Amino acid sequence: MEETIKITVAGPRGKMGKACVEMVASTPGFQLVSVLDRINDGKRLNEIDPQFSRLPGVPVFTEPEKCLADTKPDVFIDLTRPEAAFSHTRTALSFGVRAVVGTTGLTDDQLAEIKALADRNAVGCIIAPNFSLGAVLMMKFARMAAKFFPDVEIIELHHDQKRDAPSGTSIQTARMILEERGAKKQGHPEEKELMAGARGAQISGIPVHSVRLPGLIAHQEVIFGSRGETLTIRHDSYDRKSFMRGIETAVRAVMALDRYVYGMENLLQ
Amino acid sequence: MEETIKITVAGPRGKMGKACVEMVASTPGFQLVSVLDRINDGKRLNEIDPQFSRLPGVPVFTEPEKCLADTKPDVFIDLTRPEAAFSHTRTALSFGVRAVVGTTGLTDDQLAEIKALADRNAVGCIIAPNFSLGAVLMMKFARMAAKFFPDVEIIELHHDQKRDAPSGTSIQTARMILEERGAKKQGHPEEKELMAGARGAQISGIPVHSVRLPGLIAHQEVIFGSRGETLTIRHDSYDRKSFMRGIETAVRAVMALDRYVYGMENLLQ
Amino acid sequence: MEETIKITVAGPRGKMGKACVEMVASTPGFQLVSVLDRINDGKRLNEIDPQFSRLPGVPVFTEPEKCLADTKPDVFIDLTRPEAAFSHTRTALSFGVRAVVGTTGLTDDQLAEIKALADRNAVGCIIAPNFSLGAVLMMKFARMAAKFFPDVEIIELHHDQKRDAPSGTSIQTARMILEERGAKKQGHPEEKELMAGARGAQISGIPVHSVRLPGLIAHQEVIFGSRGETLTIRHDSYDRKSFMRGIETAVRAVMALDRYVYGMENLLQ
Amino acid sequence: MEETIKITVAGPRGKMGKACVEMVASTPGFQLVSVLDRINDGKRLNEIDPQFSRLPGVPVFTEPEKCLADTKPDVFIDLTRPEAAFSHTRTALSFGVRAVVGTTGLTDDQLAEIKALADRNAVGCIIAPNFSLGAVLMMKFARMAAKFFPDVEIIELHHDQKRDAPSGTSIQTARMILEERGAKKQGHPEEKELMAGARGAQISGIPVHSVRLPGLIAHQEVIFGSRGETLTIRHDSYDRKSFMRGIETAVRAVMALDRYVYGMENLLQ
Repeated sequence: MEETIKITVAGPRGKMGKACVEMVASTPGFQLVSVLDRINDGKRLNEIDPQFSRLPGVPVFTEPEKCLADTKPDVFIDLTRPEAAFSHTRTALSFGVRAVVGTTGLTDDQLAEIKALADRNAVGCIIAPNFSLGAVLMMKFARMAAKFFPDVEIIELHHDQKRDAPSGTSIQTARMILEERGAKKQGHPEEKELMAGARGAQISGIPVHSVRLPGLIAHQEVIFGSRGETLTIRHDSYDRKSFMRGIETAVRAVMALDRYVYGMENLLQ
Repeated sequence: MEETIKITVAGPRGKMGKACVEMVASTPGFQLVSVLDRINDGKRLNEIDPQFSRLPGVPVFTEPEKCLADTKPDVFIDLTRPEAAFSHTRTALSFGVRAVVGTTGLTDDQLAEIKALADRNAVGCIIAPNFSLGAVLMMKFARMAAKFFPDVEIIELHHDQKRDAPSGTSIQTARMILEERGAKKQGHPEEKELMAGARGAQISGIPVHSVRLPGLIAHQEVIFGSRGETLTIRHDSYDRKSFMRGIETAVRAVMALDRYVYGMENLLQ
Repeated sequence: MEETIKITVAGPRGKMGKACVEMVASTPGFQLVSVLDRINDGKRLNEIDPQFSRLPGVPVFTEPEKCLADTKPDVFIDLTRPEAAFSHTRTALSFGVRAVVGTTGLTDDQLAEIKALADRNAVGCIIAPNFSLGAVLMMKFARMAAKFFPDVEIIELHHDQKRDAPSGTSIQTARMILEERGAKKQGHPEEKELMAGARGAQISGIPVHSVRLPGLIAHQEVIFGSRGETLTIRHDSYDRKSFMRGIETAVRAVMALDRYVYGMENLLQ
Repeated sequence: MEETIKITVAGPRGKMGKACVEMVASTPGFQLVSVLDRINDGKRLNEIDPQFSRLPGVPVFTEPEKCLADTKPDVFIDLTRPEAAFSHTRTALSFGVRAVVGTTGLTDDQLAEIKALADRNAVGCIIAPNFSLGAVLMMKFARMAAKFFPDVEIIELHHDQKRDAPSGTSIQTARMILEERGAKKQGHPEEKELMAGARGAQISGIPVHSVRLPGLIAHQEVIFGSRGETLTIRHDSYDRKSFMRGIETAVRAVMALDRYVYGMENLLQ
């Protein structure tokens, strides 16, 4: 019989945090024992947001030490902002509480310090910029394919409310491909753009094309070509729920870890 | 019972000309009565190229007037070069022979003169820059869809031996969409390219993205987006055979025409 | 300057009705003057569902005659059930109020009676089983393409909570294609299924394949093939919002109509 | 500096064999030293097929022993028929000549005997039913993805001259997925086919859909779905050239092998 995993969620009022609270509360074998919020100390979860009115009234804390000492979680999930996440995670690891961190923007120094702490204390810690298992597999497969298909282009497609192009995931995908194949010039040696931009943005020779249209959600296609064949890996993300499955996977994995792991791809063996 | 259509092909040694000679020779109801070539006057078709060794030995001419007078075709198909095509087509229409012209690069003045001649003589004439029915339908549907889906992007994908980007078909598609919806800025008003080229080439506000990879042949996707839905029209061209079907369709259509028509899309009603 | 269009919505508590009430309330130029509900007579809209708490307090009626007489809408939108929709629509047309009906399941006799009434009274009436403009265009283009591409297969993909296969839209698409090309056997004459079902369901010779997976929403691909090329029309529906755009289009169109129209495709010229 | 690899090709007049002879003759670092044919003993390659008229006049043999003894290849490539391939391969391995076998249809007993011989003699031997690197990667990725995405469907699309459905590659893909996830029922528990075949062929619960259309070549899509996301792996094979790249890869790999390997996927690490 599996033990129940006791969980604290930090950042319960953000978009991801809300979805995470819902996920923990509804996943068999998971128990939400507390939430850590910047405000609302001493209240109950069902009092702080109408969306949580049907959820159990678990306690809300503002002080991480008190939160962890009083409610003794097995896993601490952080979905806040970089400075808070750094501080929270160090506290959790010092208390011997495993950490799953989805907050992005931590510096290399901060990550190094967290790694050192987790490894020294032998406490599991997973930090991941992207919890979508589909996106992580897409990137992993892309790197593997690049060994045999060095010519590749990336098309990423998002709703037209997205301001930046190209997307973070497409840049990360290109970087992972570059670990395998290095920079190189693709296409015809005398290739010519009749109109600027036609051949996309270039990341060390990998063209990236960004489509922005109403109706779209978040999609990416990585196309590899070689003599007589193409291989395409496509990920379609329709809903924040996909991230929750990744967090759920990370929570189960961190229970068996006694060290630091960066990136979901390093869990997926 | 249908009459046999007697046909002359000009340009029998080019890539398209060869495929066309094969098509005419193998299509029931079509009869190849002569070919017009820059050289080889007086020879037989089966003597001028090993590929034609199994085809009937129809006569080869260098002089268009003699060719038409001696072999009296119903339809003259031109797949040569602009100057030759202009001269041939005028000759054919003067002789009352219907013309199907796939040669690209005729000037607006030349097209106007051919139109005037065809209409005055009441002889059918079809000039088409693209005989692929699939490509023509894609463009036609794209124009129709733009009325209801004004936000659109084009992705065209070709083998990496193609030098120019974007492709002629993608530019033509954008122009046809612009007949329906006019120029406009798409995407987020504060959209920002972190890397130049990410958002593609802009044709009056329609982004066009050009993918070039070994293995690919000739493909295009037109994606329309609106609240909660996308509509995609995709054409994949794998083989020159697709053009031959268009020429076959044009030959049958020109038999019933007594005027000039430009573009296959104007035949597809 | 455009006149404001005054609108009554019947069925405000169903999924589509709720979305429609939101759409009417938020569309410039539209004014929600009343809702028709089976219950809640005499209440205000903002009292009958928490979701409507921020919307204006328009009156709720249970009697269609009183609703129309008191609030004098220009357009009556019905999103209820067949029997109610039939009765409501007759009443609206008798009052000279234009009708837009999205309710499915009306019998041929009921449709014929509504048509007769609308045409006799010269009052615009639009009845549509599918308000998604993208789906309607996909079907329209599919019928047009079938004239030149008689070989076609349909792949429809939905979430795995959908019980029936194939989908209604795929069956309707096949029927529209059959109006153009008639029944015929596709594939190799000696085609053989090594495992039953591989070649899909057959609708007069058009194979239809139904994919059901978690994560998917509602998608359909119509693939046409011919010598050397394929033409694909794909519709992705991500959200009920796409239907609302269709209803909005129908409301504007019905204002200019003095007769009965069945199907959005007959509005899209 | 790399050594030249000396190669014998068996089956030089079949479709694959012809393409392989062309590939070996045109690949830098490869040298075609002989061909093994059922007929034509004592002739020269350039005499046995017009297509080879420009290739070097390497000797043709009918006896494998004499072929190997006289021309001393490093690698023997077999693209013949099962019985011949079995006999040839045993001979090659006995002579200490590495073997690359693309012939399909060898029995399990034959494969076991070849394996034993290769391993005992410490001679590299690669037997692969599919040399397309893209197809092999697709299958490998599909098996890996199934661990995290147990719900999956396969769509395979081929030209309409293909008689059997589903394709061999789709069946092999399903089997590889089943190594990872086991049989299970997908879709809604009360799923209902309104028309037989809509939900495809079932391979231990994995639906496989076969599309057959003119114009298509050889394509396959493996779609994985989970809460809020889908992951798709697609392979498009346009040309026999893609197999030649796989054979080239196998030839280079077998030079470093001293044992038996079955399947290209086991070379791609």
